[in-house]
Amino acid sequence: MAEILVVYTTLRGNTGRMVEPVLEGIREGGVAARALPVEQVTMADLRAADGIIVGSPTRYGGVDWQIKRLFDVTASEGYPGPLDGKVGGAFTSGSRAGSGAELTLLNAVHILLNHGCVIQGDPFGPHYGPVALGSPDERVLAACRAWGLRWARLTTRLAAAATA
Amino acid sequence: MAEILVVYTTLRGNTGRMVEPVLEGIREGGVAARALPVEQVTMADLRAADGIIVGSPTRYGGVDWQIKRLFDVTASEGYPGPLDGKVGGAFTSGSRAGSGAELTLLNAVHILLNHGCVIQGDPFGPHYGPVALGSPDERVLAACRAWGLRWARLTTRLAAAATA
Amino acid sequence: MAEILVVYTTLRGNTGRMVEPVLEGIREGGVAARALPVEQVTMADLRAADGIIVGSPTRYGGVDWQIKRLFDVTASEGYPGPLDGKVGGAFTSGSRAGSGAELTLLNAVHILLNHGCVIQGDPFGPHYGPVALGSPDERVLAACRAWGLRWARLTTRLAAAATA
Amino acid sequence: MAEILVVYTTLRGNTGRMVEPVLEGIREGGVAARALPVEQVTMADLRAADGIIVGSPTRYGGVDWQIKRLFDVTASEGYPGPLDGKVGGAFTSGSRAGSGAELTLLNAVHILLNHGCVIQGDPFGPHYGPVALGSPDERVLAACRAWGLRWARLTTRLAAAATA
Repeated sequence: MAEILVVYTTLRGNTGRMVEPVLEGIREGGVAARALPVEQVTMADLRAADGIIVGSPTRYGGVDWQIKRLFDVTASEGYPGPLDGKVGGAFTSGSRAGSGAELTLLNAVHILLNHGCVIQGDPFGPHYGPVALGSPDERVLAACRAWGLRWARLTTRLAAAATA
Repeated sequence: MAEILVVYTTLRGNTGRMVEPVLEGIREGGVAARALPVEQVTMADLRAADGIIVGSPTRYGGVDWQIKRLFDVTASEGYPGPLDGKVGGAFTSGSRAGSGAELTLLNAVHILLNHGCVIQGDPFGPHYGPVALGSPDERVLAACRAWGLRWARLTTRLAAAATA
Repeated sequence: MAEILVVYTTLRGNTGRMVEPVLEGIREGGVAARALPVEQVTMADLRAADGIIVGSPTRYGGVDWQIKRLFDVTASEGYPGPLDGKVGGAFTSGSRAGSGAELTLLNAVHILLNHGCVIQGDPFGPHYGPVALGSPDERVLAACRAWGLRWARLTTRLAAAATA
Repeated sequence: MAEILVVYTTLRGNTGRMVEPVLEGIREGGVAARALPVEQVTMADLRAADGIIVGSPTRYGGVDWQIKRLFDVTASEGYPGPLDGKVGGAFTSGSRAGSGAELTLLNAVHILLNHGCVIQGDPFGPHYGPVALGSPDERVLAACRAWGLRWARLTTRLAAAATA
């Protein structure tokens, strides 16, 4: 069974509140899901996952420095190669429109693409990943579940191909 | 007297509704301001301005193609050089959080930087330029005026230096 | 049989010289490939393809305005939905390091993600797509073929899943 | 006398080799310049400077995690405000075209804009800051000096305005 790992950190709790609905959406899509705070993630965790989703607060137009350290240091073991072909994605919470939330998502996407990950956008909802501005409301939580499901489906598509 | 030119286009009217408060903010800062729809802008207009502010709807993660054509074709006359050192900036309207609004602002900023423009961010409000999600409400219109004032002040600082 | 469409435009011929090796790489991967100048591309062409690769010269930190017009106008027919789940990618030629080539690739990637496309990075070579600085040399042409092959494999993986 | 602070870190020495020519260019422009490794930079250093230039190796499409930590943690003291209106800029070294060098520059620029810094692009050379691909050659070192001079001139323009 395919598994997606959610790697996250939270500043005031808003990004943290998005983790559970993301996990629910992934499981609804028939894929196993677990979440780890960024400080606990090992290279073995990253290698074992079929998909890696990054949850980061919006921090000055990019991901939190601890997320960056994970990919600069921990994930550099055996680079290039270990994360190639895995599904990638990101979610974030910021303070308001224009607070840097999209730049944070794209910063995560650039990192994951550099490692060889497969990223899909979404024309139907928030295009680059779930975004909360302030505390996530019901609409945002629904977007988290929808994106979780979307990540699960992509992971399943790619896993099916691998065993076809 | 320094002058800032606002170059804009609008899709459903939301970006268009941001033009007037941006002009008000600029004038409040003691700088002349005028706005032109993108189809009417000539290279002479761009050359004459001390600052160039781009207003574009959020279009698939970037500026509207007509804005891009202005800088690819019209503004390429005499490049590199004609826009070097002018103040630059951008505002946009999108549909919701994650609709690509920040990417649109940054796409405009990249274009302006490439032409040599001077860009300032804002730590106090929306960081990269005014953003409306849906029809601009009072808070967004206030941000438009605040950013207009900020662009005027930067233009004045740079113009003062030129004549010091 | 899956098919990838290469949509391109060229300014001085450098981007144009990258088209053929990209097509070769795709075909080497067992996927049909054809290229169309951006002015000739219709919505039917985009709908029919399993993958869409954008070739654009580096133009002031973003894709050529004609590429943007294609996605703003032509591809907006039936949006959201028609391009969802297709493979996407980009290649470009610029003048030198720091000429905006990576920003151009990412501008194309943002557009494609917004339409729902699936993008994979590459940890082994240029990470976001093939890049020529000046006229493409043998190393760049090899990167074009390698990326073509990579796009073909991702397309095959996703197509296999669809029929599994 | 105005002063620019160069904050840097280096992985294999290439970014480090760009520091001295950047300092030379700044001093040639009549502005004081000093460089500090990122681990030694305090908030007092950032506050005292009229300009802040970030030198970072290209790390997976963004700045090194230690640079990010500086702006996430150290520079958050008293935010928003302390860095508002200062000149900002960035330089980087990567491995090849498409290695993420431009994304690294722009990641730094996004961070600096978020703090309120003033950024100028360059239409005449590398547009977003000096870029070395591999060990910096004479052309890159000249670009470092040219950008240093450019940053000094912008700093002087803004400082002159402050005292006019």
